[in-house]
Amino acid sequence: MFAVENGLQGDPRLKAISDAIRVIPHFPKTGIMFQDITTLLLDPVAFKHVVDIFVDRYKHMNISLVAGVEARGFIFGPPIALAIGAKFVPLRKPGKLPGRVISEEYELEYGRDCLEMSVEAVKSEERALIIDDLVATGGTLSASINLLERAGAEVVECACVVGLPKFKGQCKLKGKPLYVLVEPNQFDELTL
Amino acid sequence: MFAVENGLQGDPRLKAISDAIRVIPHFPKTGIMFQDITTLLLDPVAFKHVVDIFVDRYKHMNISLVAGVEARGFIFGPPIALAIGAKFVPLRKPGKLPGRVISEEYELEYGRDCLEMSVEAVKSEERALIIDDLVATGGTLSASINLLERAGAEVVECACVVGLPKFKGQCKLKGKPLYVLVEPNQFDELTL
Repeated sequence: MFAVENGLQGDPRLKAISDAIRVIPHFPKTGIMFQDITTLLLDPVAFKHVVDIFVDRYKHMNISLVAGVEARGFIFGPPIALAIGAKFVPLRKPGKLPGRVISEEYELEYGRDCLEMSVEAVKSEERALIIDDLVATGGTLSASINLLERAGAEVVECACVVGLPKFKGQCKLKGKPLYVLVEPNQFDELTL
Repeated sequence: MFAVENGLQGDPRLKAISDAIRVIPHFPKTGIMFQDITTLLLDPVAFKHVVDIFVDRYKHMNISLVAGVEARGFIFGPPIALAIGAKFVPLRKPGKLPGRVISEEYELEYGRDCLEMSVEAVKSEERALIIDDLVATGGTLSASINLLERAGAEVVECACVVGLPKFKGQCKLKGKPLYVLVEPNQFDELTL
């Protein structure tokens, strides 16, 4: 579900967020129109809009855990976690987390990848939010949902800054709702 | 320079921060006593103490840019940048940033590594803060200072949550001051 479908229709913050995201063609591979959120981070006002919108949505949902997907989920997750008084749990690439971890493999467009989470980070029945910068296939978020559910958490929602139009409406990932702020920008030769 | 040497002597927040950091022996390699900040992130109060102390220190220093070193610098940098109204610039492993980048190689204890930064992210003479979770040899921070100075920024200070005791006093990295909150914890068999 997109923010415009859920009460933020015409909210100028969404345009400011979208305008601050640059599109880089054929990165990291030919054919991919890369939605570059690093330009959004160069605009403190637009970056704050992202955090504010998510905090407004989640502050009264009794969420005690915000999980962020390495590495860009590490950028958006902590400010939200701090604002709603929740812990932050990093979901990392293999071998990066010390102590006991659980792993979840998932499909990429080309090949496979894997995410890990500390077992001790999650208490049973905790209400969790998962955040990443972008959702395309949903593979990373689905793996993240698996990790949290295997550890006994209840995933309340997945949140992303950018998401493909196919995630409009009541679309779900593994039965979990998905909340997205903006659609991808088209590549515009003039702006590069 | 450590926080206790600079006005925060006896501040209970520093003990809370230190107590929240777990030590994992022999990770990622034998002999390394890994200072695990992920347990600090599970304690929203202690995590907020970290951000508050840095924000108090930097909010009146006319800093317009906070650079965070991948990946744990991505966790601490954004909340500080948002609080002081600065942009956030990710310093990333090779190949992760789209667009024009500059690179800086540096020595590790074993081998070499490399950090990259977007050239367009920095305006000349901007005042910058660099943040990472831990400083040991200073190699990563020195490479970060080089990147920012090559792009024309003025590095005001490097900030870390944890730092080795050798960084006490007026110790500098490439002539730049270093501000550290706590020393590493010793590994305690009983607490594991």
